Amino acid sequence: MTAETSGPARAAGGGEPLVILAAGGSVPIEVATAARAAGRDILVIGLEGDVDDGIKAFPHALAKWGQIGRIEQLVRGHGARELVLIGTVARRPDFGSMAVDFGTLRYLPRLIKAMFGGDDAVLAQFARYIEERGFRIVGVHDVAPELVARAGPVAGPAPEGGTLADAMLAFEAARAIGLIDAGQAAVAVGRRVVALEAAEGTDAMLERVAAIRAGGRVKWTGRAGVLAKRAKPQQDLRLDMPAIGPRTVEAVADAGLAGIVIEAGSVLMAERGEMVALAERSGTFVFAVPGSWSGASGEPAG
Amino acid sequence: MTAETSGPARAAGGGEPLVILAAGGSVPIEVATAARAAGRDILVIGLEGDVDDGIKAFPHALAKWGQIGRIEQLVRGHGARELVLIGTVARRPDFGSMAVDFGTLRYLPRLIKAMFGGDDAVLAQFARYIEERGFRIVGVHDVAPELVARAGPVAGPAPEGGTLADAMLAFEAARAIGLIDAGQAAVAVGRRVVALEAAEGTDAMLERVAAIRAGGRVKWTGRAGVLAKRAKPQQDLRLDMPAIGPRTVEAVADAGLAGIVIEAGSVLMAERGEMVALAERSGTFVFAVPGSWSGASGEPAG
Repeated sequence: MTAETSGPARAAGGGEPLVILAAGGSVPIEVATAARAAGRDILVIGLEGDVDDGIKAFPHALAKWGQIGRIEQLVRGHGARELVLIGTVARRPDFGSMAVDFGTLRYLPRLIKAMFGGDDAVLAQFARYIEERGFRIVGVHDVAPELVARAGPVAGPAPEGGTLADAMLAFEAARAIGLIDAGQAAVAVGRRVVALEAAEGTDAMLERVAAIRAGGRVKWTGRAGVLAKRAKPQQDLRLDMPAIGPRTVEAVADAGLAGIVIEAGSVLMAERGEMVALAERSGTFVFAVPGSWSGASGEPAG
Repeated sequence: MTAETSGPARAAGGGEPLVILAAGGSVPIEVATAARAAGRDILVIGLEGDVDDGIKAFPHALAKWGQIGRIEQLVRGHGARELVLIGTVARRPDFGSMAVDFGTLRYLPRLIKAMFGGDDAVLAQFARYIEERGFRIVGVHDVAPELVARAGPVAGPAPEGGTLADAMLAFEAARAIGLIDAGQAAVAVGRRVVALEAAEGTDAMLERVAAIRAGGRVKWTGRAGVLAKRAKPQQDLRLDMPAIGPRTVEAVADAGLAGIVIEAGSVLMAERGEMVALAERSGTFVFAVPGSWSGASGEPAG
């Protein structure tokens, strides 16, 4: 066991204890900041190798992949009943070098699978395991609702005309692939679906859109077309929330798309301030609509 | 006008005249061969710059992009009432250097769009124009049915077990994206949809699957997973028929997939002999199922 706890496990705040099980990226830190501001008494358990150094600003501990027994001890030690699972996992861990403790052996197969997302059934199984142990998994929308988009313009103007039509088509296409549990994002340009996301992820899909444009396979000039991102209809947002961030905006602008439509209440905005600034600077709109949006009025009706 | 007619416009055969409007690749030649064998009196009109040299083995003429008036004259000169449109278009033509004749001016915008596929509404409009002029567009399945898959094993054994489950899932995913007019192909591995085709095309999608595997984003060992290819539910097969060929088999094997499931009656098999030989050699199955296939029995029930 190389993980260590630094700082008092029970830190300032005094509110209801919360454990943030943090993988990579800045979002776990944003969630910790928001939850602390909301008065929660937090402990961040960072997954070694994935977690960002920024968690050192919070009461924290590190755990390795697979140390479920240790994680459970830490959660109990913090007196927490609620956990948030958040952050990105770059790639599957190296099984050879993975620390596995006694608490893990039974659950290892489902934990590993659960950590790689995409399969809602396995994630649900993981949640079931956690809840069997007497804990409750909560979502970012529960502990840091300000990180989740609300219906309306997030950056730039609401889409109109052909851009509105592309937004509707992309949003509908994203729904169709969500229904088959394949992906969360789609791109439409000129009233044609040009890309659908599956295992490659949104960033790789946007690189493909840029290549499709450069290759002349679908032609458009100036900024046109829309990326849509939304939750799968059956998605458990506590376990796996779609996200956009500054990198998404950058990739959308690089691909020559006009903007992004996201599902209100279901899509996390990572580094929102930076993302909005970048969107305004690059002339990229970001618009949130309810899942039931038909786009007909152009208004976020929900 | 640089196009020229070589050989007698009305050649051996003596059967009902047929014009094959041929873009690139070997399929137009296969169609010409099969239609001639079936007794049709054929004329191939090759699209300059796209068409394969192999059409020289048939009574043929060349036309440039946009010479609708000339094409109409050639069809009338051949005494044909039926046309087949077939072949691949590498990329949109260079508009600057395109020859446009008087017959074309009115129809140019819809012709150009029609030639690039993907938008069934525009293709239907093109068919309407042709049929307005007194001609009838027929499909490959009408004039060369042996080039289209029939239900059952095409190469290798029928899929079983996990491979059968992947075949069903990929086939269903391809249906879902067809319903939104986005694409015709999907890949499932380990009961997960890993790629969906849109504007990039099947070959590019298969390269992505290989990259996803190499990158460790989805892990599988040995040969596993299935490519499904089928017509869009609303697709007019006379205008745009999905196709697989030796290159598809090669790309499927390179991506580490186990095989291909295609929709019987709706998917063209280019260079079938070579494709089957390559499939057998590389241990890749090719299996055709009816569009209504649920996969439950593993049998091609249609």
